[in-house]
Amino acid sequence: MRTDPAGLAALRDAIDRLDEEIVTLLARRLEKVKQVVALKKEQGLPIYHPAREENLISRRREQAREAGLDPDHVEELYRCIIRQSRMRQTAHVAQAGVRPGATVLLVGGQGAMGQYLGRWFSEAGYAVRILDQADWPAADALCRDVDLAIVSVPIHATLEVIRQLGPRLPAHCLLADLTSIKREPVAAMLAAHPGPVLGLHPLFGPSTSSMDQQIVVATPGRDPAAGQWLIDQLVAWGNIVLTLPAAEHDELMDLVQGVRHFATFAFGRFLAERQVDLGRTLEFCSPIYRLELGMVGRMFAQDAALYGCIITASAERRALLKEYVASLHRTLELVDQGDAEPFHREFEQIARWFGPFCEQAMRESTFLIDKLVERF
Amino acid sequence: MRTDPAGLAALRDAIDRLDEEIVTLLARRLEKVKQVVALKKEQGLPIYHPAREENLISRRREQAREAGLDPDHVEELYRCIIRQSRMRQTAHVAQAGVRPGATVLLVGGQGAMGQYLGRWFSEAGYAVRILDQADWPAADALCRDVDLAIVSVPIHATLEVIRQLGPRLPAHCLLADLTSIKREPVAAMLAAHPGPVLGLHPLFGPSTSSMDQQIVVATPGRDPAAGQWLIDQLVAWGNIVLTLPAAEHDELMDLVQGVRHFATFAFGRFLAERQVDLGRTLEFCSPIYRLELGMVGRMFAQDAALYGCIITASAERRALLKEYVASLHRTLELVDQGDAEPFHREFEQIARWFGPFCEQAMRESTFLIDKLVERF
Repeated sequence: MRTDPAGLAALRDAIDRLDEEIVTLLARRLEKVKQVVALKKEQGLPIYHPAREENLISRRREQAREAGLDPDHVEELYRCIIRQSRMRQTAHVAQAGVRPGATVLLVGGQGAMGQYLGRWFSEAGYAVRILDQADWPAADALCRDVDLAIVSVPIHATLEVIRQLGPRLPAHCLLADLTSIKREPVAAMLAAHPGPVLGLHPLFGPSTSSMDQQIVVATPGRDPAAGQWLIDQLVAWGNIVLTLPAAEHDELMDLVQGVRHFATFAFGRFLAERQVDLGRTLEFCSPIYRLELGMVGRMFAQDAALYGCIITASAERRALLKEYVASLHRTLELVDQGDAEPFHREFEQIARWFGPFCEQAMRESTFLIDKLVERF
Repeated sequence: MRTDPAGLAALRDAIDRLDEEIVTLLARRLEKVKQVVALKKEQGLPIYHPAREENLISRRREQAREAGLDPDHVEELYRCIIRQSRMRQTAHVAQAGVRPGATVLLVGGQGAMGQYLGRWFSEAGYAVRILDQADWPAADALCRDVDLAIVSVPIHATLEVIRQLGPRLPAHCLLADLTSIKREPVAAMLAAHPGPVLGLHPLFGPSTSSMDQQIVVATPGRDPAAGQWLIDQLVAWGNIVLTLPAAEHDELMDLVQGVRHFATFAFGRFLAERQVDLGRTLEFCSPIYRLELGMVGRMFAQDAALYGCIITASAERRALLKEYVASLHRTLELVDQGDAEPFHREFEQIARWFGPFCEQAMRESTFLIDKLVERF
């Protein structure tokens, strides 16, 4: 065998020196990340910020492209670096509850979400009580000395349940709800209970296997200091808790939940009306269609009352749905006029409006399509 | 809501600068690796050296330990870096084709899909010729003795291109197209060329990293025995080829592509019309919404002409879009009447119609949501 020529040894030394520098920079990076975490904890800010991470990835991809590196490779590396710094931040979270032994009353505790939370609180060492529809005759006894009451009932029943519950709670008790609208329920809680109040909206359902990195929106009510332990508990379970005023929350959700769920429901209904051969469409479909049909099927695997409530939650939401259908009408006219130009102009304009998000969405959905294809 | 304190912004800038340095070093590293590979090739030395890789990992682990980093994390990163430079060295390994040496003419070969297929055919040992818009003066010469001609042009140009191309092809040549509608193009190919004809519709785009398990619909034209080798080639690349008569194909695609793409476009347009703060909705969204918005962004990252053509491909398709919008109107009335009962009845009925697919969709989408959450 030939021995390594001199040129090769020099190149290897150069690579070793570069690697040494890289690891030194990684160590400095970790130092900065630790400082960020400490600062955020001090200020009560959420530790993770998915949007910030995506920005970071986008910038590195761009730099990679300019430097002649494969952007996908650099993204893979940075996902790895980010994942590692995240793991480090959560590694020391205690399994024990933040206030083990405290008494939690789950109002609507027999519902899917109530049962789900009941398991988490029980396993973290809390004393869990259930107040479901049939338990109201015993409500006074169930409310005695509770430290936290969580209202987890259908939207249309929320306000009435809060009115019935409030006067029965001890003054020190933290009252929270899980409703997917926040303005009215938080106002009702403030009116019905003089103690601490916190509105919550978990952006996940009881079918989710873990709370890790699931988002919970928190809407301030009264006495945030007295409610902090519940937020700490959610964070300890892995949730990302983001604070948002009730009005802004509701406006966002009109779109994110109202319009999207309406569109999903409407597509399912259209397929049923036309008696489309689902199996046949799935046989000859792209992964994207499979994904989209999957979102429809997912909805109809769940609860009619839940989705009915979400879609028709408020007058504002119903007004937005009308605007959505009116906009669809205009789009139909656009594509039906037999002239490609206006459609192209409109498409380009929308693409510009979406901006860098398009490329990010492309990457993300390609990643998922690959996962879907891998699986089947 | 609290804004980011100044200290946080400074720390983030510091992290960004470190990341920039890291990527710069990675680019320099790749440069050195390329030089090593070139030198080794020149000297006839084997490209990989497992022992050298293990040494490298050992040194980085040691450095990590000293610098207060987790050695396992640094090892994971370096395995990733090494894997990537290895992949780069082997990416162009050709897999022998089914009919290597045969001449393939890609009509519209400068388009994204044409270029994509050109790479695959070239790497499999075919002689690839390109006939794009500017090349028509040389069309006769380009068509001489070709064994396969594939029409990969926008839908609206397909029929005219086929008419121009057909008479120039040798009689033995297999004529195929990639149009996402099949009735008219296949009829046009049969009329323009007396030899073997095969309609194809690949249900994937040129952004797909691999053909593995991607579906291609094949619509029989003429002389299937003479076209079998092309199907074999697609299968050899990992595609799943499914045969479907043109009429049935088009009816399915009116729904699977026409209605879905229309709905996706319309939602993007609605968001742009309302100047929705995308970043804000993404910050406070569930993975499902992220997925759905991702599908919208994905469309607008692509070609306006492509989607314009798909959405308005035929009179049948435009008629179906009208029925879809009419159905949405009825759904709006259903949710807007202020009575939950009819909505629930309808929901249950649709859920029954979807049947076991719902549960399957639930499992599949939960799997994907978990993947999405893992990634971020």
